[in-house]
Amino acid sequence: MLLTVTLNAALDLTYRVPRLRAHETNRVTEVAERPGGKGLNVARVLAALGHETVVTGLVGGATGAVLRTLLAASTGVRDELVPTAGTTRRTVAVVDASTGDTTQLNEPGPQITPGEWGAFLARYATLLSGAAAVALCGSLPPGLPVGAYADLIRRARAAGIPVLLDTSGEPLRRGIAARPDLVKPNAAELAQLTGSTEPVRAARDARRRGAGAVVASLGAEGMLAVTPDGAWRAAVPETIAGNPTGAGDSAVAGLLSALAEGLPWPSRLARAVALSAATVAAPAAGEFDRRTYDALLERVEPVALRSR
Amino acid sequence: MLLTVTLNAALDLTYRVPRLRAHETNRVTEVAERPGGKGLNVARVLAALGHETVVTGLVGGATGAVLRTLLAASTGVRDELVPTAGTTRRTVAVVDASTGDTTQLNEPGPQITPGEWGAFLARYATLLSGAAAVALCGSLPPGLPVGAYADLIRRARAAGIPVLLDTSGEPLRRGIAARPDLVKPNAAELAQLTGSTEPVRAARDARRRGAGAVVASLGAEGMLAVTPDGAWRAAVPETIAGNPTGAGDSAVAGLLSALAEGLPWPSRLARAVALSAATVAAPAAGEFDRRTYDALLERVEPVALRSR
Repeated sequence: MLLTVTLNAALDLTYRVPRLRAHETNRVTEVAERPGGKGLNVARVLAALGHETVVTGLVGGATGAVLRTLLAASTGVRDELVPTAGTTRRTVAVVDASTGDTTQLNEPGPQITPGEWGAFLARYATLLSGAAAVALCGSLPPGLPVGAYADLIRRARAAGIPVLLDTSGEPLRRGIAARPDLVKPNAAELAQLTGSTEPVRAARDARRRGAGAVVASLGAEGMLAVTPDGAWRAAVPETIAGNPTGAGDSAVAGLLSALAEGLPWPSRLARAVALSAATVAAPAAGEFDRRTYDALLERVEPVALRSR
Repeated sequence: MLLTVTLNAALDLTYRVPRLRAHETNRVTEVAERPGGKGLNVARVLAALGHETVVTGLVGGATGAVLRTLLAASTGVRDELVPTAGTTRRTVAVVDASTGDTTQLNEPGPQITPGEWGAFLARYATLLSGAAAVALCGSLPPGLPVGAYADLIRRARAAGIPVLLDTSGEPLRRGIAARPDLVKPNAAELAQLTGSTEPVRAARDARRRGAGAVVASLGAEGMLAVTPDGAWRAAVPETIAGNPTGAGDSAVAGLLSALAEGLPWPSRLARAVALSAATVAAPAAGEFDRRTYDALLERVEPVALRSR
């Protein structure tokens, strides 16, 4: 079983407007609601890949109840979310139909109490015992210690479970010091962490800080893996047009599943790159296009980088 | 008892952002939720003025349940909303803290079935029998006939209950033909209805089309009343700075309460103008500042217009 953790779950709303006019009244023509937060997105992709998948994290209030109802309708994801008194946040993606541009509004999330964090830790311990690998994903809600991910990483390592961390800022910095097996920052997050805008140098620095391996997403330039076994770069052979929402979460799903399967690093990287591109190609945000994925997986060829 | 009808109720969200950046990710720093839709806003003001107030209309789904919970916490408003299978819409007001400007996003509202409309009509008939006056407010949700307000006006008139209509577009046009006692368009709605941008001329035209009286809000220039007893214009003696959200709904509350009390037209107009300005002056959107209201009510002096 693969486990994903979403501490700051969200009810994701997508609003389509003919043309977004700031400082005016906009009539929304289409509304879509789905369970959100990076870990839930990762889980949906894992389940679609055929993996037994469990989600945990924190969820509460009326929006939390809607999220759980929608989650129950997604096949193959088991809900082990822990309830909170506070209300799960919403995110609103406003898609301007005239340009395709998206304006994102993210609520901050509920205040988590020490008792709720304790209840989560107990559930996490139970779930870890049956997990082949765990992904810790996204921002921390208010009230949690900034070292919350570091704590979860230490517990996974103590249980002998491979652990992937996908977050940013201070929680990423603290998390890396707890020695996760893999982190997946984008170029900006890596630069913020290390002070270096050169991705290979920054990824090597992140490894020195404690990360077992670093897979950095470089947007249209594909991905970079810096690992104990060597360093590789991979990209899709042609430009993929579409919606990049969820591409990073699909990459995490590819990495986590390949990590659990014990595949070599070039195969892990190829899977992440192909899934990510197949998500950009899919018409619905956060879904992946299966045929694009299968076709790309055969064609993505990671290139080894010289060691320095 | 005063009755307000909100067929397209809403859960109103207010998001505060430091500076709204289109096509980027915006962190929302403050979230407020409250029951919305014009009729619910009018009811809140009526209750604050000390009137026994009942709200009806259509409400459903998870957002509808949150709306009703919040409504139950407002003192003095009795909830006689009729349930729908569809989900009550949200509106999102994004306030840019750097400029004070608001960008509004309005969901379309749920599809209403003929059975739900029938259940509403039965509830409306029961409530009308105990009402001193009724206000019909806001847009129509999908599925309702465009003549829905005209139908409700005819039923109120048959029951001998004074009826006020505050809507726009085709529902306003159809509603006016059913001879409501009072309509409260703004200048733009009046121009759209009549084709005339000169408010006095347009208001007289609206009366010829069937409205017993017309009170038009003219923004900073105050309000205009064209009635069977004469025509008046009134404004506050000085410019009021603040947030105009809800000012029109407060004006409706002032007019409805004064209509039910049988006050003469100049007093009705003065109450509407003072309440509207006291709403602009209040720090929270849609609330009114009681001291400003009391002070202005004594100082607003409607001026009679020469008949033509």
